[in-house]
Amino acid sequence: MKKRKKLRSDIAWSDATHIVVRGHNLVDLIGTTSLGDFAFLELTGRLPTPEESTVFDAIVVVLVEHGLTPSAISARLTYLGSPEALQAAVAAGLLGIGDRFGGPAEEVARMLQEAIAGGGEEGDMAAGIVAVKRAAGRPVPGLGHPIHRPVDPRTARLFEVAAANGFSGRYVSLMNAVSGEASRVFARPLPVNATGAIGAIASELGFEWRVCRGLAVIARAIGLVAHLLEEDREPLASEIWSRVDDEATEHLRGITDERD
Amino acid sequence: MKKRKKLRSDIAWSDATHIVVRGHNLVDLIGTTSLGDFAFLELTGRLPTPEESTVFDAIVVVLVEHGLTPSAISARLTYLGSPEALQAAVAAGLLGIGDRFGGPAEEVARMLQEAIAGGGEEGDMAAGIVAVKRAAGRPVPGLGHPIHRPVDPRTARLFEVAAANGFSGRYVSLMNAVSGEASRVFARPLPVNATGAIGAIASELGFEWRVCRGLAVIARAIGLVAHLLEEDREPLASEIWSRVDDEATEHLRGITDERD
Amino acid sequence: MKKRKKLRSDIAWSDATHIVVRGHNLVDLIGTTSLGDFAFLELTGRLPTPEESTVFDAIVVVLVEHGLTPSAISARLTYLGSPEALQAAVAAGLLGIGDRFGGPAEEVARMLQEAIAGGGEEGDMAAGIVAVKRAAGRPVPGLGHPIHRPVDPRTARLFEVAAANGFSGRYVSLMNAVSGEASRVFARPLPVNATGAIGAIASELGFEWRVCRGLAVIARAIGLVAHLLEEDREPLASEIWSRVDDEATEHLRGITDERD
Amino acid sequence: MKKRKKLRSDIAWSDATHIVVRGHNLVDLIGTTSLGDFAFLELTGRLPTPEESTVFDAIVVVLVEHGLTPSAISARLTYLGSPEALQAAVAAGLLGIGDRFGGPAEEVARMLQEAIAGGGEEGDMAAGIVAVKRAAGRPVPGLGHPIHRPVDPRTARLFEVAAANGFSGRYVSLMNAVSGEASRVFARPLPVNATGAIGAIASELGFEWRVCRGLAVIARAIGLVAHLLEEDREPLASEIWSRVDDEATEHLRGITDERD
Repeated sequence: MKKRKKLRSDIAWSDATHIVVRGHNLVDLIGTTSLGDFAFLELTGRLPTPEESTVFDAIVVVLVEHGLTPSAISARLTYLGSPEALQAAVAAGLLGIGDRFGGPAEEVARMLQEAIAGGGEEGDMAAGIVAVKRAAGRPVPGLGHPIHRPVDPRTARLFEVAAANGFSGRYVSLMNAVSGEASRVFARPLPVNATGAIGAIASELGFEWRVCRGLAVIARAIGLVAHLLEEDREPLASEIWSRVDDEATEHLRGITDERD
Repeated sequence: MKKRKKLRSDIAWSDATHIVVRGHNLVDLIGTTSLGDFAFLELTGRLPTPEESTVFDAIVVVLVEHGLTPSAISARLTYLGSPEALQAAVAAGLLGIGDRFGGPAEEVARMLQEAIAGGGEEGDMAAGIVAVKRAAGRPVPGLGHPIHRPVDPRTARLFEVAAANGFSGRYVSLMNAVSGEASRVFARPLPVNATGAIGAIASELGFEWRVCRGLAVIARAIGLVAHLLEEDREPLASEIWSRVDDEATEHLRGITDERD
Repeated sequence: MKKRKKLRSDIAWSDATHIVVRGHNLVDLIGTTSLGDFAFLELTGRLPTPEESTVFDAIVVVLVEHGLTPSAISARLTYLGSPEALQAAVAAGLLGIGDRFGGPAEEVARMLQEAIAGGGEEGDMAAGIVAVKRAAGRPVPGLGHPIHRPVDPRTARLFEVAAANGFSGRYVSLMNAVSGEASRVFARPLPVNATGAIGAIASELGFEWRVCRGLAVIARAIGLVAHLLEEDREPLASEIWSRVDDEATEHLRGITDERD
Repeated sequence: MKKRKKLRSDIAWSDATHIVVRGHNLVDLIGTTSLGDFAFLELTGRLPTPEESTVFDAIVVVLVEHGLTPSAISARLTYLGSPEALQAAVAAGLLGIGDRFGGPAEEVARMLQEAIAGGGEEGDMAAGIVAVKRAAGRPVPGLGHPIHRPVDPRTARLFEVAAANGFSGRYVSLMNAVSGEASRVFARPLPVNATGAIGAIASELGFEWRVCRGLAVIARAIGLVAHLLEEDREPLASEIWSRVDDEATEHLRGITDERD
C-alpha cells in the first residue's frame, strides 16, 4: 500500500482506558455538558461560553422541526419499505435538505461573509449584494417568506437573543441593511426571515458559511426521528402511497367516473 | 383521490403568525430551551425536568463521536464525490448506524423492557436473558468491550449521573444483574459497557426501545458534520481511495516488485 | 499504519492502457455486450449463456417499475429539496427497497435454497416450509397478491421463459409445491406471485439468496431515474407536500370549516 | 385536503389483471426485452431500435465498474455497520456519484447541447467553449485523463460503435473539435476521454443532458451490488477502518515508536 500522504484527524481517539474528544476526557463531559455544547465542541474544537451556548442552541432549535415537510414525508415513506432500518429512513429525509431547504442559510452566510471580507461601507455592501442578485434574476436569500407574513415571527426573537448575548455585530447589521436595500429596490417589504437571521448569527458566532447546511442537517435529524416514532403509532405513508398512485394514474386507467 | 384514512400528525403546525411545535409556541422556546431539551420535547411531546434533561444529554453526548468509524470514513469518501451535497455525505455516514453500530443499545433496551414487562424476580429475569442468548450462541448485548478493558470508563459515570438524578431504577439494576449472571455463566468478567448503560438509562427515562437507534442517529449526525468540516481542511478520502485501490488490485496487475 | 490483513478485490483493475473487468478487457465488451449480460458478469464473474441472459433479463425487467410506489414518491420529494443532487434522490428511493419491498424475493430464495440444501422429498419440504410459517403466524412469502387476483399475470410468463431456457428445475418445482401445500393448509387459493417466481428462478440461475435484494435495487434504480425525469417535466412533490401538511395538521389549527 | 393541481404520472399503472409500463403490457416484455432496452423504454417512453439499443448499452456498460472507487469503499463500509440493509449500502455508494464523478458526463452533454442549440459554425462553437472554460480557470470537461494516457482506450471504441450504428453526428463531431481546439490553446494533447464520448453519444441518442448523471447512477448501482457480494466473501471494510483510525489518530496517542 503506497503511502503518499499521512492520514491525520484531530477529532478524537481512544484506547483501553481513554476516550478523548477534542482534547477533553469524554468521561468528564458526561453529566456536565449539554448536547448543544457538545455539538459546539465537535464543530469548533472548544466548549462554548455561556453566551455562545445560548445563541448556538437558539439557531439550531429553530431548524429542528418544520412540520410535514417533503423530508419528513420521504422519511415516513422509506420507513414503510424498510422498517428494519430506521437509520435509512432518517437518511432519506436528510437527503432532501439540499440546495432548496438547507442551502439558503448557507447562501446567506456566504453572501455576508464574502461581502465583509471584501471590506467597504455597509451601505455599499448591501447595495452590491442586491444589485448582483437582481442582475442575475435571483431572489436575495434570507428575505421574505411565503407563509410567515408580513414578518417571520422567529426573526425578532433570534436577533433579540443574539443581541442580549453580544452577538449582534456586523453580520446582523449587514443583513438588516440588505433587507432595507432590497425592500427599496424591489419596492415591497422584504423583511429578514428566520433563515436570514440564522445565516447572520452563525456568522457572528464565527462559523464558516458551509457549516450552516450542516447545522440544518444536525437539527433535522432530530425532527425526523420524532416523525418516524409518530409514524410507528399513527402511520401516514401507506395512505399517501395509495392516494398518490390512484390519482396520478387515473387517466391511464380510463376510469374517471367512480372517484371523488 | 380516494380517501380511506384521515392523515394526522400532532408534531407541529404553522400559519402566517404561528409556529407551534408539540403545543409550544416556537418563539417562546428560542433562547430559553437547550438543544437537548428541544430534542426531548420532539421525541416525547413534553419538555424534560432538569433531572431528565441532564440524564438525556448525558446518554446522547456519549453517542456523538467515536473517532474514525466506518461511518465517518464513508461520509468523507462520499463528500469527495459529491461536494455539492454535504447532506448526502452525512446521510451516507448515518446509513452505517444499523444493526451492528446502532442496534446494540436498541437490543439492550428491548431485552430489559421485555423482561420487566414479563414480570418476575430480577435474578430469574437475568438468568433467563443469559440462558436465551447462550442457547442461541449469541453474545449478551451491552456487556464487555473489545477495546475498553477491563472496564468501559463511561459506564460508571453514566450510572452515577443517572443515580444522582433519580434514574437508577429497575432497568439499571437488571442490567447489572445480567452482567453478574453472564460473568458467572461464561466464567469471565463481562462488565456493563456504555451501550448497556445507555440502553438501561434510556429505559429509565421511559423511552421505548426503538428510540435508542434514533438517539444514536441523532448524535452521530453531529459527529459526522464535524468530520466533514475537518475533511474540508485536512482531506483523507483521496488518499484512502488510492491506497485501497492499489493494494486490493495489486495481484491482478501482476506487479509485485515495486510496492511496499 | 499497521496491516493485519491484505486487502484484495478481484472485480476490476486499470492502468494507463488497460481496463479489465472480471478478467475481460472492457474495450472488447463495448458494443458487443448488453447491459444485462454485463450485470450478470459483474455479479457472477462470467458472461451468461444466451439462455441465462434471457432468463436473467426477464427477472430483472419485472423489478424495474412498479408505478408510484413509496420509493418513487420519496425520490420525487427528495429531488424537490435537493435538485443539485439527482443521485441523492435515487438513493432516497432505494432506501425504501428493504424488508418489505426488496425482502420478499430474498426470503423466497432463502427458503427454497435452505430447504433444498437440507435435502428430502419435495412434498416434505413444502409441508415443512408451510408449517414453519404457519406456526410463526407469518405468511408464506411469494404467494398471493393484494391486487393481482386471482393470479399474478407475471408468474406464468416468467415460469414459461424459465422453462423454455432450461431453468425450470427443483426450485421452481418446490415453489409450486409450496403454493399447493399452502393453498390446502390455509384453504384458499395462494398462487405463486411474481416475487415467488423471481426468487425461484434466481435460485435456478445459481444466485445465492442475498443477491435477490440486490437485483431489486439494481432494477429499481432504473425506474427511479425515470420518475425523476418525469418529475422535472410534471412535478408532483410540491403538491403532495402541501396536501399532506394541510390535512395532517388541520386538527391542530382549529379550522375545519374552510377546507374541502 | 385542498387540491390545487391534479397529480399525474404517465409511466405505469396496474390493476387486478393489467400491468402496463409506458404503454406496453409488461407480460409481453418478459423474455423478449433486454434489460438495456427496458431501461431505454423507461427513460424515453419507447423501445429502442436495434441501433439505439447497441449504442445505449455501450455507453451504460462503460459506467458500471470503475474498481475500488470511493463509492465502492463507502458502500462496503456501510454494509459493515448495517448488514441488515443491503439497499442502504448501495445507496451510500450512489451518494458519491455527484458533481465530481457523475457530473462530468452531464457537464459535457450540457456544454454540447447548449452550443448546438445556440447555432453557428462548429469551429466557432469549439472556440467559444474552450475560451469560456479558460477564462473561468476551469478544465474543459471530457478531455484528458489522469491514468489513461496518452489516450483513453474506451473513446475510440465508443465512437466506433456509435458511428457503426448511425450515431456519430454533430455532437460527436463538436466534441472532437473541442478536443482539437483545447489541445491547441493549452498546447498539450487533450484527447476526448470516455466521459466526453459518453456525453456526446448520449446527446446523439437524444437524451437531455441531465439524464447523463442518471445513467451513471443506474450503471453504478450494478457495480455496487457486485462489490457488496464480494465484501460478503472477502471483507475489506473492517481492515480499512482499523488502519485508517490507527494512522490518523497516532499523533494524538503519543505513540510513534511501535508503528510502521
